[in-house]
Amino acid sequence: MNRIITISREFGSGGREFGRRLSENLGCAYYDQEIVQEIAKRTELSERYVQQVMGHRPITSFPIHIGRSFRMMADPNMDQSQTIFREQCSILREMAAKSDCVIVGRCADYILWEEKPFRIFVYADMPSKVERCRVKNYEKEDLTDKELERRIAAVNRRRADYYEYYTGQKWGDRIHYDLCINTTQTNIKQMTAAISRLFMGQA
Amino acid sequence: MNRIITISREFGSGGREFGRRLSENLGCAYYDQEIVQEIAKRTELSERYVQQVMGHRPITSFPIHIGRSFRMMADPNMDQSQTIFREQCSILREMAAKSDCVIVGRCADYILWEEKPFRIFVYADMPSKVERCRVKNYEKEDLTDKELERRIAAVNRRRADYYEYYTGQKWGDRIHYDLCINTTQTNIKQMTAAISRLFMGQA
Repeated sequence: MNRIITISREFGSGGREFGRRLSENLGCAYYDQEIVQEIAKRTELSERYVQQVMGHRPITSFPIHIGRSFRMMADPNMDQSQTIFREQCSILREMAAKSDCVIVGRCADYILWEEKPFRIFVYADMPSKVERCRVKNYEKEDLTDKELERRIAAVNRRRADYYEYYTGQKWGDRIHYDLCINTTQTNIKQMTAAISRLFMGQA
Repeated sequence: MNRIITISREFGSGGREFGRRLSENLGCAYYDQEIVQEIAKRTELSERYVQQVMGHRPITSFPIHIGRSFRMMADPNMDQSQTIFREQCSILREMAAKSDCVIVGRCADYILWEEKPFRIFVYADMPSKVERCRVKNYEKEDLTDKELERRIAAVNRRRADYYEYYTGQKWGDRIHYDLCINTTQTNIKQMTAAISRLFMGQA
């Protein structure tokens, strides 16, 4: 069985850097945006659209009680979300079957549970997330700290909603992860170097 | 400034083993039961009594609104709890000032915040905590799994209450820790070896 490491991460916490460094240290595959690209290719939808759908839990276009009364009525929004999620599941399973890998986001910890992934959650406090977004010049916009905080909180709320919709689990609840890492005061390079030892038989 | 590592831990999660191994790897002091012994010595109370008080949040002997109306009335239970907590604070500060160390429990992560400790929270799922308690032959009693579960949950509820009473923070809330480690599927020896690298400049 291949060694699968999944990284769930709060927006602004450096989870992507964490995953990339880990895969570099371990010399294994790294999947992040590649998943969106592959879904777009297979569904013939645009990457931008796939990204948007994957960033939100599905919204049905009519109230759920109407949906229940007229079961045969199709909901195109819902259908598209389900199609994308199905593709996401099969692509993740193919990636996991191919070789050792680090996968960032996309409910991979849940979808690949049969592969017994090592599940990491990366988080940080708000000032540190704001600072990280500033340094990366987030969307090159001139936002105040308060605006940036609101935006970060909104992205993380959407990630939580999406995860909870598809998994029935609470996003970020420590019991669903093997390791939760706070990057507020932690040097990501040093931490990934230490964690890598776990998988290199050198610990 | 000395390197202080604090370990908060769910009962049955192997947090004590985690702390002990970490201190052995780093060749630094390890404080756990020693804190209770030192408080007992300084307050001239029995170790058993100190342990009991430290395991519960204080209970006032009359309703809090009466306490507010008659401020001059002393509450002996409350006084003793406060005395023990004060000793706990000064002993922890002395230990932290003496040398690098690993401290298990006793709100050390909060009390020593000025020393910028590296704060670890160790946890596990319930079946794994039950199994660990079984292996350690917890109190040599013949308990069913359900009874053991209830006992583990009760100890952890008390730890949470005690921590929240003295710190105003939620026990186990990831934001108050640098690292949260789930020992359910993790080999503690390997994990402590990896984490030790963080503090040995070898990561």
